[in-house]
Amino acid sequence: MRIETIKSDGVAHLSYMVIDGNAAAVIDPRRDVDVYLQVARREGANITHVFETHRNEDYVVGSRSLAAVTGAEVFHGRGGQVDHARPVEEGESFDIGKARLTVLETPGHTFDSISLTLADRNFSEAPVAVFTGDTLFIGDVGRTDFYPDRREEMAEKLYDSLFGKLLPLGDGVQLYPAHGAGSVCGGGMADREFSTLGYERRFNPRLQLEREAFIRAKSGEHHYQPPYFRRMETLNDRGVEPDALPRPAALPPGPFGERRDEGLTVLDLRTPEAFCGAHIPGSLSMPTAVAPGYIGWLVSYETPLGLVLDDDADLDRALRELYRLGYDRVEAYLTPGMTAWEASGADYGVVPTVSAATLKQRYAQGDDFLLLDVRAIDEYQAGHLPDATHIYLGHLADRLEELPRDVPIVTFCGSGKRAAVAASLLTRHGFTRVENCLGSMAACQAVGCRIVD
Amino acid sequence: MRIETIKSDGVAHLSYMVIDGNAAAVIDPRRDVDVYLQVARREGANITHVFETHRNEDYVVGSRSLAAVTGAEVFHGRGGQVDHARPVEEGESFDIGKARLTVLETPGHTFDSISLTLADRNFSEAPVAVFTGDTLFIGDVGRTDFYPDRREEMAEKLYDSLFGKLLPLGDGVQLYPAHGAGSVCGGGMADREFSTLGYERRFNPRLQLEREAFIRAKSGEHHYQPPYFRRMETLNDRGVEPDALPRPAALPPGPFGERRDEGLTVLDLRTPEAFCGAHIPGSLSMPTAVAPGYIGWLVSYETPLGLVLDDDADLDRALRELYRLGYDRVEAYLTPGMTAWEASGADYGVVPTVSAATLKQRYAQGDDFLLLDVRAIDEYQAGHLPDATHIYLGHLADRLEELPRDVPIVTFCGSGKRAAVAASLLTRHGFTRVENCLGSMAACQAVGCRIVD
Amino acid sequence: MRIETIKSDGVAHLSYMVIDGNAAAVIDPRRDVDVYLQVARREGANITHVFETHRNEDYVVGSRSLAAVTGAEVFHGRGGQVDHARPVEEGESFDIGKARLTVLETPGHTFDSISLTLADRNFSEAPVAVFTGDTLFIGDVGRTDFYPDRREEMAEKLYDSLFGKLLPLGDGVQLYPAHGAGSVCGGGMADREFSTLGYERRFNPRLQLEREAFIRAKSGEHHYQPPYFRRMETLNDRGVEPDALPRPAALPPGPFGERRDEGLTVLDLRTPEAFCGAHIPGSLSMPTAVAPGYIGWLVSYETPLGLVLDDDADLDRALRELYRLGYDRVEAYLTPGMTAWEASGADYGVVPTVSAATLKQRYAQGDDFLLLDVRAIDEYQAGHLPDATHIYLGHLADRLEELPRDVPIVTFCGSGKRAAVAASLLTRHGFTRVENCLGSMAACQAVGCRIVD
Amino acid sequence: MRIETIKSDGVAHLSYMVIDGNAAAVIDPRRDVDVYLQVARREGANITHVFETHRNEDYVVGSRSLAAVTGAEVFHGRGGQVDHARPVEEGESFDIGKARLTVLETPGHTFDSISLTLADRNFSEAPVAVFTGDTLFIGDVGRTDFYPDRREEMAEKLYDSLFGKLLPLGDGVQLYPAHGAGSVCGGGMADREFSTLGYERRFNPRLQLEREAFIRAKSGEHHYQPPYFRRMETLNDRGVEPDALPRPAALPPGPFGERRDEGLTVLDLRTPEAFCGAHIPGSLSMPTAVAPGYIGWLVSYETPLGLVLDDDADLDRALRELYRLGYDRVEAYLTPGMTAWEASGADYGVVPTVSAATLKQRYAQGDDFLLLDVRAIDEYQAGHLPDATHIYLGHLADRLEELPRDVPIVTFCGSGKRAAVAASLLTRHGFTRVENCLGSMAACQAVGCRIVD
Repeated sequence: MRIETIKSDGVAHLSYMVIDGNAAAVIDPRRDVDVYLQVARREGANITHVFETHRNEDYVVGSRSLAAVTGAEVFHGRGGQVDHARPVEEGESFDIGKARLTVLETPGHTFDSISLTLADRNFSEAPVAVFTGDTLFIGDVGRTDFYPDRREEMAEKLYDSLFGKLLPLGDGVQLYPAHGAGSVCGGGMADREFSTLGYERRFNPRLQLEREAFIRAKSGEHHYQPPYFRRMETLNDRGVEPDALPRPAALPPGPFGERRDEGLTVLDLRTPEAFCGAHIPGSLSMPTAVAPGYIGWLVSYETPLGLVLDDDADLDRALRELYRLGYDRVEAYLTPGMTAWEASGADYGVVPTVSAATLKQRYAQGDDFLLLDVRAIDEYQAGHLPDATHIYLGHLADRLEELPRDVPIVTFCGSGKRAAVAASLLTRHGFTRVENCLGSMAACQAVGCRIVD
Repeated sequence: MRIETIKSDGVAHLSYMVIDGNAAAVIDPRRDVDVYLQVARREGANITHVFETHRNEDYVVGSRSLAAVTGAEVFHGRGGQVDHARPVEEGESFDIGKARLTVLETPGHTFDSISLTLADRNFSEAPVAVFTGDTLFIGDVGRTDFYPDRREEMAEKLYDSLFGKLLPLGDGVQLYPAHGAGSVCGGGMADREFSTLGYERRFNPRLQLEREAFIRAKSGEHHYQPPYFRRMETLNDRGVEPDALPRPAALPPGPFGERRDEGLTVLDLRTPEAFCGAHIPGSLSMPTAVAPGYIGWLVSYETPLGLVLDDDADLDRALRELYRLGYDRVEAYLTPGMTAWEASGADYGVVPTVSAATLKQRYAQGDDFLLLDVRAIDEYQAGHLPDATHIYLGHLADRLEELPRDVPIVTFCGSGKRAAVAASLLTRHGFTRVENCLGSMAACQAVGCRIVD
Repeated sequence: MRIETIKSDGVAHLSYMVIDGNAAAVIDPRRDVDVYLQVARREGANITHVFETHRNEDYVVGSRSLAAVTGAEVFHGRGGQVDHARPVEEGESFDIGKARLTVLETPGHTFDSISLTLADRNFSEAPVAVFTGDTLFIGDVGRTDFYPDRREEMAEKLYDSLFGKLLPLGDGVQLYPAHGAGSVCGGGMADREFSTLGYERRFNPRLQLEREAFIRAKSGEHHYQPPYFRRMETLNDRGVEPDALPRPAALPPGPFGERRDEGLTVLDLRTPEAFCGAHIPGSLSMPTAVAPGYIGWLVSYETPLGLVLDDDADLDRALRELYRLGYDRVEAYLTPGMTAWEASGADYGVVPTVSAATLKQRYAQGDDFLLLDVRAIDEYQAGHLPDATHIYLGHLADRLEELPRDVPIVTFCGSGKRAAVAASLLTRHGFTRVENCLGSMAACQAVGCRIVD
Repeated sequence: MRIETIKSDGVAHLSYMVIDGNAAAVIDPRRDVDVYLQVARREGANITHVFETHRNEDYVVGSRSLAAVTGAEVFHGRGGQVDHARPVEEGESFDIGKARLTVLETPGHTFDSISLTLADRNFSEAPVAVFTGDTLFIGDVGRTDFYPDRREEMAEKLYDSLFGKLLPLGDGVQLYPAHGAGSVCGGGMADREFSTLGYERRFNPRLQLEREAFIRAKSGEHHYQPPYFRRMETLNDRGVEPDALPRPAALPPGPFGERRDEGLTVLDLRTPEAFCGAHIPGSLSMPTAVAPGYIGWLVSYETPLGLVLDDDADLDRALRELYRLGYDRVEAYLTPGMTAWEASGADYGVVPTVSAATLKQRYAQGDDFLLLDVRAIDEYQAGHLPDATHIYLGHLADRLEELPRDVPIVTFCGSGKRAAVAASLLTRHGFTRVENCLGSMAACQAVGCRIVD
């Protein structure tokens, strides 16, 4: 009996396979399902069951696709209105060889959230592990903000699921959540990749609160709801059919530039430093680490995309990450990379970079500039530079008119990546005096800039 | 913070890396240490600490080698007399980034056995996991038979380590033992690869016993002590230097046969079926699954070895597995495989195979044959075919003179693999009427042979 | 500018990619086209052209499939009646970056055979290499027996193509044929994998003949035309759509046996030695090396197949090789291998093996047995054992009634592989006294058996 | 019989394995020899012979190391004074199975240069291929400038080797040279990776010259002789022992910066764009594509090195490439990359980038700046921007005092990479007004800048 963890780096998503004998179940599969087929083959197992712990909103789920190629049945909590899945309810159980998965209804993050306990029937019917979806994470608990006018109700449900259903399973039960550190589904997750209910009961900060305090805290939490969550929900309600990764054309600078001129959105996936050094005019900076959280705010699913990469060898990974986020229309990539563009004589843009030390000096000198802080509001409120203008990166495209065009703007975030995206968005919309503070808040703290609340 | 599990299939050995930030510790490294270097590089970490949970006897430990190439320090429990390691004692702790490993002296399996608790100091000083070496396994506990005249004492120590030190760490602590199912270090291990102290406390059969019953049970247990355990202990006391895998010559049938005639021991690593179908006369059958438990009984470390494989592509894996067991003198392999031998006109041996149904019929007919059961004594005592002669495979080479040469001998074990080894040993020593019961006890039970105690 | 050679081992088929800048052409793609997509991506190139050198009859061509996923156009010689391809004729040329491919009509093997010259226009319009399909091989030339009543005509055409078109391209032109040693498309191919027109002109035995002698030799050649050639031709005329490899169910012995009883044809892909040692009753031995040449004679495309492998890890390769030969209905495989079958108590068959030395002795003693030689007629005529009965393996299924059931039959071939297939066919049809001569002709020559013409 | 080509990208070096049966020869092995061992194992072959076509000066040869681990003998042309090799002379031949390698003395590039013809003795004693080392390339011939006062003599020898020895082997002989396009060993090499003597005879521009013209041209050629050639020669004379790749420590910004302050030379292997965007002050830009040709001019073999990479996953490749060039003292790398440096608050440098369009405009406006062209003299002489100051990149470190510190300097090369190296060298030495023209000459031509001779 083994549990295979499949981690999708960008979205910090964790899916699992439970394998025993010739049978295998998959929990919360991602869209590019080949990895599950490979593991199953390696283990001599057939995928017979696919479970969704809830209707996901932050990535495209591969259940329907996996079912289509394996013949497995898909299961989803009651009330999920998911076309391709059979609804399951509390207490239903499924045998994967000697492993038994049993449904526990654990609403709170969503109404249809379930957890799945795992028993090893060679030893006992008691659970040895539990798959908690987005209900309980390592070091954090699920978001309860998806039904804005029912936040308190959701927080109550979550509390009852955690304290009434999960923790009573016992301290000695291993925990397998659907996300790890870096996910948009919770900011307090540990970077530790293993835990137990007993450890969480004692040390997860969220589980140290009394019921009232818990509900109050969760109801008052601030989270952003990116517009792409809607798209994910719609896709995940009906499921996606099995299909292949996009196959973008390899284009040299000339034809690539023509496609841009015809409306291709150019995504520059290189590092912020490289983008600042030179980039295709009009392109949008989208470093790999930033894309999962922000691309959905900034890029339409309908627009054809063209990619700029540091190395053609990164293409497959880039396509997979975009595909998991629902972006299928990748039609071209520049080859052999940015150097070719420069050597073609085509123009390129530059974003001057500003270090924390320089910024500190400018403050001291009283220079005239606008510091544009694009972090989340709670990051901002926890401490920011004096007189910083705050516009959340996800909202920036809609609020450009609030910004002056005659003053230098320094984009700013936690370390400089989101700031690069912001800078690219500004230059794309005609702002000409834009600089990016590489290092941003982390560096400013290190060099002792004045921070205000 | 992550734990990377490195599993060595043959010996069912589990080693671990604890990685946080740029630091990494390795626990019980195997001899071919390249895998640890690769993981460290992938994670951007430096291996700074190597721990041995005890002086291993079933495989060659790679600590000294790993220390030599990384500069890491090696640590070992007090009393271990291990030249290349610094002794540690109860309560000493070591920081790997924010992870803290703390020594717990847990004697019983050996005097020098330690466990290592792991705390995630981002959350608490309390342990979230424990590395238990050969003290506590998933579904079983360590052997206590290594000091034959002190077995009761060792069993007491083990009980106290388990109940006085490990279980009190709390139910919610994850368990990382040094072996999994298939190891010679314990017969009752679960094939499940994850557990917690809480789950083991409730469901590990060994942990359900009272102190007296536990000690009685452990003192009375039967285990074989292969002669190679001595060799491993000696090697592991002084540590092995970093070296490369053997590089055997690829030899066609003619030269390979000449090397055999000059004293090369031919190990046939193919399946039992293939060995029975045709094999090089004088060769020893040694299917991959059987080698870790038995090769040490049957093959001297000093003799040069020649390999017969199904496929040249298996060579690397075969060399690694032999290397981990201390066999360095692999000097040749037959290429391109057994077919070349046959086509060369060289003679080949055959071992007739006997199915359970045929065996049943022979019993019914009262045919004259000797059934040679080579399983462990406790397997034999749990049920065997009538009138079976029992000689443990590990002892067979020394007891050949007990067997008649004028009666057909059918070799027999659990499923036919060890029986193939036994059959090869007999034919190698001139027995001419040898057959192998493929399927053996498993098949006999399935077809309803009469079984006696 | 590079040429990437993709070799498909079983059928000894060579396909090629010509890559320059961002463009790539594929010549004679195999059915599982993922490899071409990977190379193209690695090289930053788009596959724009697919060429078929002729309508293949020995494997399924992937042109249509590759065109469907890349948008490339497919080209085929005139008269090919290939639905998915545009006909091309002498002199048409196609630019792949600075590489230029030009059509040369080279009939003889088939009417529609073309060759493609390759020029590097950075240097010259003169050819630097030529892709010759099945017209010219390294050390051999194409078969001319596909139109039985027009063999002389085809031989003439081939001569003219070779001497009138290819050799005049000049000695310094590199040669890229569609097959290498081991193919059913020619028995005299060199195992050397590189050559030039100049070297072939001087040293290819077939090119040393005068016109008359060449035509006489080619017209008189004997080749077998497996029935599956028809199937391939039909498939290749209309092209296959892109699809996935079969996904057989992993079945343990019980269910696997039931599927066999319901009509699944069991293909045993293990080595002949393993098959002889123990096999599932009724299964057909089909060692990997033998399958491409013989499976089409023995196994219907419509029957569901179940596989027996030495190792589950071989499954992917086995599926690919069967898929290339047009076998899609692989519905199950036995797991975890033959040992599980034996341990289940299910019965298994055995084929006694006979060495050349034993055979020699039997001849000397005048033992009563029938030696069944299943090699090709020209192998047989070049030398065989006395009184051997010859039935070509491809014809054996249709001629079983010619064989006696009351006499021991020893199957015999070149080295024992085809003999294993023959032995499995006989036992599958109820012959009970069948033995396999592992080593066969190669061994008999080595031990000095008497050979007659 | 097969030839396996092993290509080392950076130095554009080609080594070869000739394999037949169980034997293999390696020609001009690179320093990291594991690849040869892997191929040999895959092919079931033993490496028995290692040949050096001459004493290499542009990379570290792995002959001695390979001999040490395989027991193979090393061979080198007469006069090579290579300690670890046995001298061979014209006509000596060596059998690798049925392949025969025969020595042809072909001096000119060096005195000890040999070529090796390859015959397939299954067909003929006549050669089918030839390994030409640095004597004949595809599209070019070897350099003859290594003995400055004997250049004419070397050119004569080369002519005689080419026309008197190689071409007479016949048009139909395949050509396997020691370098491909991108090597510092010749600027005119084709990017085509295959050719024949016949094709070269007709289309290699160098082989179209009469003897006198050839000698005159070769004697008059300009080549740079990097100082590291001496180091390579010394290393290659005595051979390097087998050793492992360096294992640099993974260091976060703080300790990495301390090491820099203590004298570590920081090599920034990222793209020029990323370097220009932000870099560690004092670091030397060394993009992968540029390193083989220039690092030897700029970095001492004795200095400890620290690396800055885009991605930790690139580390292994970077270490190999440096190792092949003789750089063993890589002691650290920054992790997790440049972003960590910026976020630490440490200062970083920036190099403003200038496009061709901007440059053109500056010329038009008569702006005051110094254009520093660091290309090779023949590139410069073939066309350069008006008033450009030419200092070859390899000489720049020694000629810094020729440059003004009060005028803006724009570094310039072919496409911007060497210019980035130059810019980093200038800023490292305190020049404060340095800009890099990404795109450089290629872009300037595209946008129509005025070019002068």
